[in-house]
Amino acid sequence: MNAYRIITKKRDGGSLSSEELEFFIRGFAEGFVADYQMSAFLMAVFLNGMTTEETVALTEVMMGTGKVLDLSAIAGKKVDKHSTGGVGDKVSLVLAPLVAAAGVRVPMVSGRTLGHTGGTLDKLESIPGFRTLLSSDEFVRNVEQVGFAIAAQSSEFVPADGGMYALRGVTGTVESTPLIVSSILSKKFAAGIDSIVFDVKCGAGAFMSDFSEAQGLAQELVHVSSVMGKTGRAIITDMSQPLGFTVGNVLEVKESIECLRGRGPDDVREITLELGTEMLSLAGVDSDAVKARRRLERLLDGGRALEAFAKFVGAQGGDRRVIDDFTLLPNASSVETVVAEGEGFVSSIDARALGELCVEMGGGRRRRDEEVDKSVGFSLFVKVGDEVSKGDPLCEVHLNRGASSILGRVADAFRISETPCERRKLILGRLPEVPG
Amino acid sequence: MNAYRIITKKRDGGSLSSEELEFFIRGFAEGFVADYQMSAFLMAVFLNGMTTEETVALTEVMMGTGKVLDLSAIAGKKVDKHSTGGVGDKVSLVLAPLVAAAGVRVPMVSGRTLGHTGGTLDKLESIPGFRTLLSSDEFVRNVEQVGFAIAAQSSEFVPADGGMYALRGVTGTVESTPLIVSSILSKKFAAGIDSIVFDVKCGAGAFMSDFSEAQGLAQELVHVSSVMGKTGRAIITDMSQPLGFTVGNVLEVKESIECLRGRGPDDVREITLELGTEMLSLAGVDSDAVKARRRLERLLDGGRALEAFAKFVGAQGGDRRVIDDFTLLPNASSVETVVAEGEGFVSSIDARALGELCVEMGGGRRRRDEEVDKSVGFSLFVKVGDEVSKGDPLCEVHLNRGASSILGRVADAFRISETPCERRKLILGRLPEVPG
Repeated sequence: MNAYRIITKKRDGGSLSSEELEFFIRGFAEGFVADYQMSAFLMAVFLNGMTTEETVALTEVMMGTGKVLDLSAIAGKKVDKHSTGGVGDKVSLVLAPLVAAAGVRVPMVSGRTLGHTGGTLDKLESIPGFRTLLSSDEFVRNVEQVGFAIAAQSSEFVPADGGMYALRGVTGTVESTPLIVSSILSKKFAAGIDSIVFDVKCGAGAFMSDFSEAQGLAQELVHVSSVMGKTGRAIITDMSQPLGFTVGNVLEVKESIECLRGRGPDDVREITLELGTEMLSLAGVDSDAVKARRRLERLLDGGRALEAFAKFVGAQGGDRRVIDDFTLLPNASSVETVVAEGEGFVSSIDARALGELCVEMGGGRRRRDEEVDKSVGFSLFVKVGDEVSKGDPLCEVHLNRGASSILGRVADAFRISETPCERRKLILGRLPEVPG
Repeated sequence: MNAYRIITKKRDGGSLSSEELEFFIRGFAEGFVADYQMSAFLMAVFLNGMTTEETVALTEVMMGTGKVLDLSAIAGKKVDKHSTGGVGDKVSLVLAPLVAAAGVRVPMVSGRTLGHTGGTLDKLESIPGFRTLLSSDEFVRNVEQVGFAIAAQSSEFVPADGGMYALRGVTGTVESTPLIVSSILSKKFAAGIDSIVFDVKCGAGAFMSDFSEAQGLAQELVHVSSVMGKTGRAIITDMSQPLGFTVGNVLEVKESIECLRGRGPDDVREITLELGTEMLSLAGVDSDAVKARRRLERLLDGGRALEAFAKFVGAQGGDRRVIDDFTLLPNASSVETVVAEGEGFVSSIDARALGELCVEMGGGRRRRDEEVDKSVGFSLFVKVGDEVSKGDPLCEVHLNRGASSILGRVADAFRISETPCERRKLILGRLPEVPG
């Protein structure tokens, strides 16, 4: 067996065996398969695809390059949620404490900002003192005692993924279903979970803008999970406009806390309840969707989810006082308001453009080692379908520099039409499909 | 413009502009496009192909990364020959002095052994003292004074090709028409030639075993040459069995000298005369094929081609006495004979297997920095179609070590069938096609 023959087999449309994938991926993790060979392989996979059997084998092999956490000492099913990434997607910050308050254990391994999309870890680190790097022992202890933990993946887990992920970002091999699926699932399953619900984002602000592609990805995530002995479910949700009214790390933390008080934007609350209902069912806590939803609404509106969040912030070293005093959070030095230049109906809000502008303002990364400015971002006043008059505020821009080059482009992200526009449907699909 | 978008454009089946190819290839030569980005690009080109316009632009851009020789001071057309590589292909050693004797100037930039195929430079270096590294000035002077020169490409010419070629060898992106064409033509045209004849090898011993693939490559070589203002012609020749009766550096030099005396194997002589006739036509020396062929036969049989060879060996520092005294050439320490185990007809001789065994015996390279043992190789006694009796010699194996592990496999390369077999056709195709 050698790396060259494995590359040419995939290049020629062949299916790779577990042994071949093991040789290649382990070889890469150990350094005898070179990065230029990996990138040729990634491009061949991108263009020729993989069978589900190959994706399963690839996921297992990637997991096997590192440590796999054993959570069997913690009673009950361990359930996680994964979002494929969007703009303004702060759902994890609300959902994890909410379902933990309902008795589900959530060991959540999360990520950082990627391209134009935000990252849960960067958002949480807006809270003074908050630590996202936990030892395995601390992670397990927090899941057991707090009910959930949200942490960065340590390099002990799936070391092969780090190098592959970095190469994909610079070689045009990101948007490949088998590569996305194996990267997500190897990391999630290495954290020891039993089941998972996927929030597959679809629209211009997501990595997949085409519904059938998003559906294909959702199907493969659920299918590969099942072959690997885990239960997976997926919902496909709209990402054509930002989720909620805020984009940017600290602004999203504030909006999440509002949601945990039973307030906050309808769309964030709705997706949180949908995903939470699935998680309660997967955990065996409540298989009746109507009852599960009611239980979650009570926990949100009664403050129990917020209590769980406070406990979590404290357990990971953060300053819990921020929950009641937002002045303890970082603030941008200036806030500019962008207003409607005419009257009409908001027909689109370019989520990708706002995400990219947020990166440009310092709220995301262009290189792996860049610092993130937690304070910058956008507070929106409108959603698609809203009616506006000339001069109505569309959006506040929180920024520390470069207003002149940003504000005009923020305005361009909002389209106003003369005719009324339909509001966007939020939930676009569900897997496995519920029998009619 | 950035490398990532260029890769994804090719990945998605787009056509790249000259500017994009210039940015990417020059970026690679200058080091800001990484090798892992180049290999993803190469795989995308392999799988999605290139238009002729793209291949032309790629060739020009590659040429432009280095020096381009100006041979305009030398009178007459400068014509070269390129073979896509085979086993036992020593044609350059006979052809270059032959057409030089007819008055054609041949500035031949040649290569080393590659995989299972031999390389003209390694063969010539079997001659004591022979130098293949010439300065540009020396190369030009020899073409002018001797009529031809055969030399290695200096790294001043097409520096981008070195790195791309090395990556292709380890990333499964060798057998791609646009990549082959641009690699060959950028190097040949950087040497300042006006026209070129291509010997596209087809069969198990060549890089392309399928006739339609070989034809496609030949067409693209001729077409791209023409777009670049050069005249190209191609013949497609059989490489299902070794060319001539010898495989291995010094053995092929001896056989070439026999050919230059008007003797030597029919197939080597025939291909040499075919290619030479094209070169005389391209040079404007003799456009009548029948007359050109007769002229070349006279030069071979009358010793003029051999005289040109002797002058060339001397001009490049080699010991000219070897021509009359083969004992001055390196010899292997032992010669073993492989015989027919039954009677019948030779139905196939596995050229690729013999080429690979020659590498294994030390006659080729597995790594770029390996020394080549000039003395080892095979002297065959038979061609496909020959009748043999049990015990008849098939092949002499010239080797310095490891006879026990080699001889059985040499025998396996010869297939003997009970029924008569047709002799192989030597010339399989010709481009541009001669109108009926």
